[in-house]
Amino acid sequence: MKIGFIGLGRMGLPMARNLLRAGHELVVFNRTRNRADALVAEGARVAAGPAEAARDAEALITMLADDAAVEQVIFGEDGALQALRPGAVHVSMSTISVALSERLAAAHEAAGQAYVAAPVFGRPEAAEAAKLWIVAAGPAEQIERCRPLFEAMGQGLFNVGPEAQRANLVKLAGNFLIASMVEALGEAFTLVRKSEVDPGQFLEIVSKVFGSPIYANYGRIIVEDRAEPAGFKLSLGLKDMRLVLAAADSVVVPLPLGSLLHDRLLAAMARGAGEVDWAAGLARRSAEDAGLG
Amino acid sequence: MKIGFIGLGRMGLPMARNLLRAGHELVVFNRTRNRADALVAEGARVAAGPAEAARDAEALITMLADDAAVEQVIFGEDGALQALRPGAVHVSMSTISVALSERLAAAHEAAGQAYVAAPVFGRPEAAEAAKLWIVAAGPAEQIERCRPLFEAMGQGLFNVGPEAQRANLVKLAGNFLIASMVEALGEAFTLVRKSEVDPGQFLEIVSKVFGSPIYANYGRIIVEDRAEPAGFKLSLGLKDMRLVLAAADSVVVPLPLGSLLHDRLLAAMARGAGEVDWAAGLARRSAEDAGLG
Amino acid sequence: MKIGFIGLGRMGLPMARNLLRAGHELVVFNRTRNRADALVAEGARVAAGPAEAARDAEALITMLADDAAVEQVIFGEDGALQALRPGAVHVSMSTISVALSERLAAAHEAAGQAYVAAPVFGRPEAAEAAKLWIVAAGPAEQIERCRPLFEAMGQGLFNVGPEAQRANLVKLAGNFLIASMVEALGEAFTLVRKSEVDPGQFLEIVSKVFGSPIYANYGRIIVEDRAEPAGFKLSLGLKDMRLVLAAADSVVVPLPLGSLLHDRLLAAMARGAGEVDWAAGLARRSAEDAGLG
Amino acid sequence: MKIGFIGLGRMGLPMARNLLRAGHELVVFNRTRNRADALVAEGARVAAGPAEAARDAEALITMLADDAAVEQVIFGEDGALQALRPGAVHVSMSTISVALSERLAAAHEAAGQAYVAAPVFGRPEAAEAAKLWIVAAGPAEQIERCRPLFEAMGQGLFNVGPEAQRANLVKLAGNFLIASMVEALGEAFTLVRKSEVDPGQFLEIVSKVFGSPIYANYGRIIVEDRAEPAGFKLSLGLKDMRLVLAAADSVVVPLPLGSLLHDRLLAAMARGAGEVDWAAGLARRSAEDAGLG
Repeated sequence: MKIGFIGLGRMGLPMARNLLRAGHELVVFNRTRNRADALVAEGARVAAGPAEAARDAEALITMLADDAAVEQVIFGEDGALQALRPGAVHVSMSTISVALSERLAAAHEAAGQAYVAAPVFGRPEAAEAAKLWIVAAGPAEQIERCRPLFEAMGQGLFNVGPEAQRANLVKLAGNFLIASMVEALGEAFTLVRKSEVDPGQFLEIVSKVFGSPIYANYGRIIVEDRAEPAGFKLSLGLKDMRLVLAAADSVVVPLPLGSLLHDRLLAAMARGAGEVDWAAGLARRSAEDAGLG
Repeated sequence: MKIGFIGLGRMGLPMARNLLRAGHELVVFNRTRNRADALVAEGARVAAGPAEAARDAEALITMLADDAAVEQVIFGEDGALQALRPGAVHVSMSTISVALSERLAAAHEAAGQAYVAAPVFGRPEAAEAAKLWIVAAGPAEQIERCRPLFEAMGQGLFNVGPEAQRANLVKLAGNFLIASMVEALGEAFTLVRKSEVDPGQFLEIVSKVFGSPIYANYGRIIVEDRAEPAGFKLSLGLKDMRLVLAAADSVVVPLPLGSLLHDRLLAAMARGAGEVDWAAGLARRSAEDAGLG
Repeated sequence: MKIGFIGLGRMGLPMARNLLRAGHELVVFNRTRNRADALVAEGARVAAGPAEAARDAEALITMLADDAAVEQVIFGEDGALQALRPGAVHVSMSTISVALSERLAAAHEAAGQAYVAAPVFGRPEAAEAAKLWIVAAGPAEQIERCRPLFEAMGQGLFNVGPEAQRANLVKLAGNFLIASMVEALGEAFTLVRKSEVDPGQFLEIVSKVFGSPIYANYGRIIVEDRAEPAGFKLSLGLKDMRLVLAAADSVVVPLPLGSLLHDRLLAAMARGAGEVDWAAGLARRSAEDAGLG
Repeated sequence: MKIGFIGLGRMGLPMARNLLRAGHELVVFNRTRNRADALVAEGARVAAGPAEAARDAEALITMLADDAAVEQVIFGEDGALQALRPGAVHVSMSTISVALSERLAAAHEAAGQAYVAAPVFGRPEAAEAAKLWIVAAGPAEQIERCRPLFEAMGQGLFNVGPEAQRANLVKLAGNFLIASMVEALGEAFTLVRKSEVDPGQFLEIVSKVFGSPIYANYGRIIVEDRAEPAGFKLSLGLKDMRLVLAAADSVVVPLPLGSLLHDRLLAAMARGAGEVDWAAGLARRSAEDAGLG
């Protein structure tokens, strides 16, 4: 399949590589060009801009940091919207707002193009191992058409129906659950430390009792204070909480735990922790509030 | 081993039964006598009061609802403290406060008796299946002495050291993690419902992404609104949050998420939900705050 | 002075009347026309649309419910921006976002017009009595030029400098303080009621101790549960909390109390209380969470 | 009137002095003896312990820091309970728990003594100026009997009925309101500072709009960051929030704002701010969470 791929960050690069390895033809674009070089050796062609990446694509995949970046590559000058051919599909895999996803659906429809929202669960290691969980929404036949792509990147596909923005809502609700878990772990480990219980042993207990690799993974980051390099930057976690609160506000749902997470992340941000791993950053906030560290 | 066993509730009864089946000799006591009858057929003897249950025991196990119940059977009139023989060990498996556990340790030491705190993780089904996770603390040789008992009731034992009350702290911190998860699920499912995503499908996604039986289990209770019979009563969840906040306050650790959980549970309690399953009860609060149900 | 006045709600109508009584010449516009009729007898002329209200004005005053309404009358079809003469000043007295105020400042500057942000503190009774507190920001000479208008409507003027949007920030921060007070009163009265203390007597004590008419006023609304007619609608209070949180987020300031207020108001909204007085509505939420009422 | 007076801290000392000046006969006791010296010159006699201070008193006044201190002087060794004569009245003016006040009422009744709870509103300056607001509860005739004492110390008396502990509840609910105001001011001033609005001017606006000396006073402490000497120590504010949350929990009332205050104060405490003025301390927490200071 002819694929345009925009966004070669810590997630996008391994995802694109897995598509190449599955035999697809890729034209890639990344704002900082040298991220793309790694893929040229594996057969990718590098585009000079979003429009060029989109031009000949049957499917255009975007995997970018936030709404602004997606708006820029799709609607901006030299944007993909005008270059994408009728009948081609834009597969938006970034974690973006429900509102932008609705706007993309409308814009692509008006242009005779298809649109599938397909955000993913998984950290960079999962992207490398093609172990992402992919939540897709949009026209059923378009999701089917893209199934080989999803299979090359993930270990499982969930189709949540024809309304594209619902995939984004599911992704945001899932990230809210993960953020809640991280905050809970941060507070619990602080309590454990100040109560003179060994954090490593507490992690072992938690891992067994919850039987969840996610708990074990985040627990380890916290116990070892692995702030850098960030598996997932705190500034991106803050972005996600803004998006989930916006989505909840628009359907009149209070999320008190979401508000707490937003405020914690904002405080960490204000204190200069935007670039550190969010789990380490949140746990440090709990620790500092208890007079530790 | 000669065992006194006090407290035959939804957890205590199957735990006592598993000890009987492992060949131990049990003298049991429960405030409402008929709960004990079920065990007589399996070989248990029924005591008229806490003291009688303790009198000939090498190990006295208590599995009760709260601090007040434990204080009553140990320190009250006809209490076990005075009846237990020197050298015998009290194994306190209830979820009680750090402060009471410290007081028990001191009282038993003064009486020439041993004390082990050994609270458990697991719901009634796990107690029945002898699949509890047991967190023990106290003198190492006493924990070893009780190992056969723990093995008859659980699937794993964690020894968190000689200070008994640290086992209670670990149990409370663990329950705080579970409560956080339940609150997060309640809020997330409310958002999902008001966004017209199918809750059952969201549960499936969450179960896969988190890969945790606990998430799947609580998620199912919430999706199916299984309020009764309660696997774990909301009033007990509130009790636990009070204990974890008290423990945190005493070591000067703010737990904003713990405070949120306390307030949510207290509101549910005030609105008459003390007897319903805590996961269903918490999720209903989120739903009601969003104008649902 | 020749004044265009747009927005004749519970605040705007008495403000416009006070300008008429001070001898100014008014052309007024309101979406629902019959609100304007009351002023015709006092000498106002009614415009058919925002543009007509702006056409001959030296000063155009807007007093509308929210950002959307202001955007509509200024930037919309038949909007005031294109009709207002160069050199005329737009005095924006609505409680709007910091972001919209910045946008208005830029748009008016580009059109050779002046812009002053001048939001007010005070409920409808204060507007009627010309007892508003007015917080103005913008070019100093423009604020001076409008001083007679402010004096006709208010009891005091604060000039917070040349950056117009800072007046909006001050207004939002002030409303945040008032909302905090209302929430605190709602929680305190609930505690008092469930502790069998007479709420009326508690109100008397609070009024004396705080020595503040605002405490006394809001306390009375809560004690008497004066939900309707609303002095200030809960839906507007929610709008304000959204604006203050947005302003805080944009300068990276966590407002945990602001988040709590937002969530409370959102829950009240979801339960159908958008049209009731916000103080009564917030207090009812506290009472309901405690199982009262 | 013959008065025993226990507790000569920043509040107790000026209160005792005002009683002396009104012509009453005082036997005073303070744990650190030299605080009492200042009153000897004005006619007070110094007791060696609580019992001696109580022995000949018609009214025994206690004005101490917390529950523990009151329990010590009343129930402890050489305590006042056993020394106080039948028919004499204990006037407990400290901010103590509802639960302790109930216990005191019962103990004094059993001893044939009277008990009045009469906590006060006002900072040390108000105590010096005899401008305290006094909230009394207990038997009506005892409150009348003590009226001359209250008039010598305060500017107003509120009688909230025969149940003594309700005066303590009112005092705690009032302190909760004040703490809420302080937290709101701390957050608002942080927002204002990061938005480049002059805090001094914002204070002026707030003072006018709220028309409350309490807002003006606390606002000034925050703007000037007057952390020391503390008018009211942060550790005492934390104590009060613990008491109000305990009182609310016991009548099943969630106080989300109270929980937020508790967590903020606890964080400040953990970071070493227990001795600073609570308004300055809380505001610093808000500022730090926004990356300031």
